[in-house]
Amino acid sequence: MAKSLKSYIEDSRSLIDKALDKYLPEIDHEPKTIHRAIRYSVFSGGKRIRPIIVLEACKTCMPRRHHFADALVIASAIEMVHTYSLIHDDLPSMDDDDYRRGKPTVHKKFGEANAILAGDALLTLAFNVISKCLDARTGFTAVKKLSEAIGTYGMVGGQAMDISFKNKRISAFTQKRINNLKTAKLFEVSAKLGAIAAGTSDKKIRAMAEFGESVGSAFQLVDDIMDSDNFSTPSLEALKIRALAGDATIKAISALEVFGSDADRLREIADFMLKRRI
Amino acid sequence: MAKSLKSYIEDSRSLIDKALDKYLPEIDHEPKTIHRAIRYSVFSGGKRIRPIIVLEACKTCMPRRHHFADALVIASAIEMVHTYSLIHDDLPSMDDDDYRRGKPTVHKKFGEANAILAGDALLTLAFNVISKCLDARTGFTAVKKLSEAIGTYGMVGGQAMDISFKNKRISAFTQKRINNLKTAKLFEVSAKLGAIAAGTSDKKIRAMAEFGESVGSAFQLVDDIMDSDNFSTPSLEALKIRALAGDATIKAISALEVFGSDADRLREIADFMLKRRI
Repeated sequence: MAKSLKSYIEDSRSLIDKALDKYLPEIDHEPKTIHRAIRYSVFSGGKRIRPIIVLEACKTCMPRRHHFADALVIASAIEMVHTYSLIHDDLPSMDDDDYRRGKPTVHKKFGEANAILAGDALLTLAFNVISKCLDARTGFTAVKKLSEAIGTYGMVGGQAMDISFKNKRISAFTQKRINNLKTAKLFEVSAKLGAIAAGTSDKKIRAMAEFGESVGSAFQLVDDIMDSDNFSTPSLEALKIRALAGDATIKAISALEVFGSDADRLREIADFMLKRRI
Repeated sequence: MAKSLKSYIEDSRSLIDKALDKYLPEIDHEPKTIHRAIRYSVFSGGKRIRPIIVLEACKTCMPRRHHFADALVIASAIEMVHTYSLIHDDLPSMDDDDYRRGKPTVHKKFGEANAILAGDALLTLAFNVISKCLDARTGFTAVKKLSEAIGTYGMVGGQAMDISFKNKRISAFTQKRINNLKTAKLFEVSAKLGAIAAGTSDKKIRAMAEFGESVGSAFQLVDDIMDSDNFSTPSLEALKIRALAGDATIKAISALEVFGSDADRLREIADFMLKRRI
């Protein structure tokens, strides 16, 4: 490949950040505190993995056309949804986190009320950007698939279950279900909507959705190890989880078969995610 | 009119409640606590004023056709949005209310984390129901207008300003601005989307939006008096606000001129709202 994966990803991030900057409200417009809180949380060093998957899924499905303005809108909306979920998850009554990516969480910096409202606003803005910037054909499908993926049968359901089982022993099956809802669903819809933006076949959309779900599962599993373990002396439990993450990544890469070499970047990204270099 | 306004409104409420019951997730599906919290808050004696305005706006615009399935979907989505806003506004870090309509607020009954998630879920569900039950033409417009009305330049912005000025003296101008964003915008979009569901002219859609905004302002003004005053000995301030509410109602009714007698019910409803019989 002409460009190293690292600089390729940097270029994607830069595109995504520019799009987000365009779509987010300016901080000198009222309500200023909410707009400041929104920009503080969105531009706080996120890795942009989900939006990168949207863009890459789109490119994989239409490798000879590099016009992917629709995918960039969807990518921005997905990152807004992801950021809203982090702001609300960090709240004192939820995971009660004071820091994220080394910086004070939104409620620590702007107060709880503003953090709740900033999250509400980002969720609302995600749907607003889709409805303002896409045509009805792609955009209406995006609203439907996205709202399904992040409601009580998706991301919010996963967070609710996670909280209800806090500090309780749960089965591996239940943990897998929580991870699927809380994390994998948003990855799944990211890859799916990238393919839909490209206007590809149903078969390829399904393949891309499967890729997204599996790569999301792998991502969450690696997260769990990083949260719970000391890397220098991995426990048996951590090794088991790492093996599961490897399996999920293999499944993700297998789902890409139908795309042939067009999906090479996406395969590299899946591998990079497993090794947490992205 | 054949039917008394009171029984007419009862019939509308019953239609809306049936639609909401159909669209809300069942409590025996996981995450059960969130689904219980959602149903608890939606079915807790709300007056359904906003969804009634959606339905009535639709009927006014197409008085000879009584097929208004689309308006009923939009009405349900608007009530979900309204309920989400109440759940989040009641939270300890916001208005810190223990009771609403004589019953414990959602966070009092289900805990704060579940209240935040139930609100998030209702907001998401509003967009999901629209995208699942409407065609792209009406539905995509509804997503756009609704998300505009409830974001930082609408409802959330109003709540943010309200909180930032808490216990501070503010000008009548600022108070009007807050009321407009926090309350009138959702009434405005309710009336507007009812007209859009009816497929009427741009001129009538604009007239209906103006009606909605004015009637929403009147509603919020009356609310302010009821919150702050003793009705048996009204203060000068309360009399002033009541006069403003009267003016707003007159403005609302004037906006309906273009509809002639087709808008008679809507005029009655505006009058009823001013007198708080609805």
